[in-house]
Formats: sequence, C-alpha cells, structure tokens
Amino acid sequence: MSVTLYGFWRSLAAYRVRSALYYKEIPFTEKIINLVEGDQFSEDYHKLNPQHVIPLLEHDDRKITQSMAILEYLEQVWPNRPILPKDAYEQAYLRSISLITVADTHPLVVPRIRGFLNKNYGQDEAGQAAWAQHWFNEGSLAIEARLHNEGLFGQFTLGNEVSIADFSLCSHVIGARLFGADLSHAPQLVKIADHCLSLDAFAKAHPMKQPGAPIKK
Amino acid sequence: MSVTLYGFWRSLAAYRVRSALYYKEIPFTEKIINLVEGDQFSEDYHKLNPQHVIPLLEHDDRKITQSMAILEYLEQVWPNRPILPKDAYEQAYLRSISLITVADTHPLVVPRIRGFLNKNYGQDEAGQAAWAQHWFNEGSLAIEARLHNEGLFGQFTLGNEVSIADFSLCSHVIGARLFGADLSHAPQLVKIADHCLSLDAFAKAHPMKQPGAPIKK
Repeated sequence: MSVTLYGFWRSLAAYRVRSALYYKEIPFTEKIINLVEGDQFSEDYHKLNPQHVIPLLEHDDRKITQSMAILEYLEQVWPNRPILPKDAYEQAYLRSISLITVADTHPLVVPRIRGFLNKNYGQDEAGQAAWAQHWFNEGSLAIEARLHNEGLFGQFTLGNEVSIADFSLCSHVIGARLFGADLSHAPQLVKIADHCLSLDAFAKAHPMKQPGAPIKK
Repeated sequence: MSVTLYGFWRSLAAYRVRSALYYKEIPFTEKIINLVEGDQFSEDYHKLNPQHVIPLLEHDDRKITQSMAILEYLEQVWPNRPILPKDAYEQAYLRSISLITVADTHPLVVPRIRGFLNKNYGQDEAGQAAWAQHWFNEGSLAIEARLHNEGLFGQFTLGNEVSIADFSLCSHVIGARLFGADLSHAPQLVKIADHCLSLDAFAKAHPMKQPGAPIKK
C-alpha cells in the first residue's frame, strides 16, 4: 500500500489533506509541487492532474484531486478515527460549513486569481492582499454566524470530536493569518482552530513547518 | 414531510439542487429569494442562512445550505434513483470533477464578486463579463481534460447513468452559455450537459424556465 500526497508548503488545500492523513495515522510521503516555480504546469504533473492544481493524492494506482473529495475518500477507505458522524443532517452541516471556505473563500485567493488581478487590474502585492483579506473576512464572518446559528459546536465544529470540517476551518484560520486578515469578529472559529492546532496532527501539518516554508524570524 | 428550496432563477447552485430534486422525484416547493432585490439580506432570510446565499433546503425543521452538501443529503435521505455509486474511487472522481466548477469556477462569478470588481476596480458590465468568461473557460478546459484523463465518462460523467456530478457539470455549461463563454474547447463536457438537458428533470429545472427569468426573444 502506497500513499503519496502532492503538495506545497503554503497550499491551504494541501494542509487540509495533510492534517487529515496525520489525524487518521495513514502513512504517506509528500512530493513537493512548487507552485511558485510552476511545477504544476510540468509535463509530468500535467499527466497526473491536467487541472494543474494541488493537492493530489496517489493511493496505489488511484489518483484523486480536490481536498473535499480526498477527505471523503480517506474516510471511506480508512474508517479508523472517523471524521464523519452517521447522521445525515450532521454530515450535511459539516459539509456545508466546510464549503464556506473550500468553495466560497479559498478559491478566490489562490495564485492564479491574484495573478489575474495583477495582470488585468494592475493590483500590486498590497492590492492583492486587500482582496484576499476582504474575502477571508467575509468567510470568517459567515462561518462564525453559521456556528452560532446551528449551535452544534463544542471544542470542535461538531461537539467534542474531530470531524471533516475541522480540517477546513483550521485551514481557513491559518490562511487568514498568513494573509493578515482580521479574525477579531470570529472568536468561536478561532477558538476551534486553535483547539485543533493544539493536537499533534493539525500542528505538524502546518504550512510553516513544511519544507520550503520561510524561516520564522 | 415538507421540502422547500429557497432559490432564484439565475442561481447555478440552485439549479444543481432543483434538477436533483426533480431527478429523484422528491416533491418540493420553491421560494424565491430575489438576489437582485437583495432578499438574501432580509431579516427573515438572515435567520435561515446568515451567509446570505442560496440555495437553502428546508426539510421539515432541518435547514441545509451549499449545493454539494444538499446533493449528498438528498442521496442519503432519498436513496431512490441513486446518484452515487458504491465504489469509493468512483465517488471521489465524481466529487472531484464537480468541485472544479462548484469550488474553482462558480464562486468566482457570483454577484458579490462582480460587485466588488465594479466597486474597487471599476469594471463595468463588459469587464465583469470578461472576468466571468475567463474563469468559465478555465473551468471548462479543466473539466474536459479531466473527463479524458480519467476516461470514465459515457453518456454522463460516469458511464451511462446519471450521477451527482451531472448536476454540477450541467450547471457549468448553462452558466458558461448565460455568460457568453467559449465552450468550443470542451466538446465532451457540452455533449454530456446536452444529454442531461434532454432529460425532463434537467430541462425543467433550467434557469430560463423559472419564474422571474427574462422572456426569450
């Protein structure tokens, strides 16, 4: 059995998968696809994923992309340390709250979007950061409101057990911090993410602890 | 048993849910949340979904948002006319290819983003259309490449049966057409979507057939 994660230190989507692999104690190796150097457009990676994005999970001869699809796959193939409850409504809550960041926030701030803003609207680094901060803020407020609206959280997104949504919510807070976004209006979200980060699986998967990450001063 | 869809004629995410409800023959009523008039920010709707987006599915006293989470929920609660295969890898393929449009394309072109482009970068309607067309094209090319890379398609995304991904791929093609994007480089994607649209469930859910849609000249 062989599991390979194609990732990159600063990818939030790769973080979601990496932290879940650690949480489920699935042995894996990680291959670096350097998004800054354009590895995602190489001939070799094109054959693996013609969408040219990471993460990609290689499980024996199976290749799976998109972090949410990978997390669901991990749960089905490695049911130990479950990350989905049995109840259909609780599952829907977890998928829904995850998608606020996985679909409605993160895809807005990835390199290809910021590159477009630069090329077409003349947005320099500060302008791109303002864009990213705006959408992180919108996402944080939405997640915070949803947490309270449904009222199902405990130490984690759903009660006091780690679930599929925690990998996404934690990636959101990590991203918001990397981009210097304001998290002061989302205290419960921050509390959940920081509780996740107190666990070894979430902590050692952190972008800043991966090969290639800038050394913290 | 009561099922209500909170939708709007031109929402591609509402289309995904509406077509799946028809396909599974689940009786439902639809309440219109007029995104142009700002119904999504009303006090009543805020209580239902503080993220202020549609669709929202109300099933008895359960409220579920995010189209992908709703589709998974429908499959669990109404297993008749299944839209997910049993195999974990096939499920992952379907979720992954869906997310190319649900996460990586559609959230880029929704009203809140186009409004931001207008307000902050001075993009008029033509500029906003160019933005939308660009990302629809990127999504179409990625989906087309993935269809051929995995080679699992038939008349539909997975072989010759309707699956969860068909609602998303069909919504992508409908959106690309509404925004005037180029689909000429994605012939297989178009073929699958048009095959879907030959079915009653997909056809009668079409945005242009909903109350409030502009009359076709």
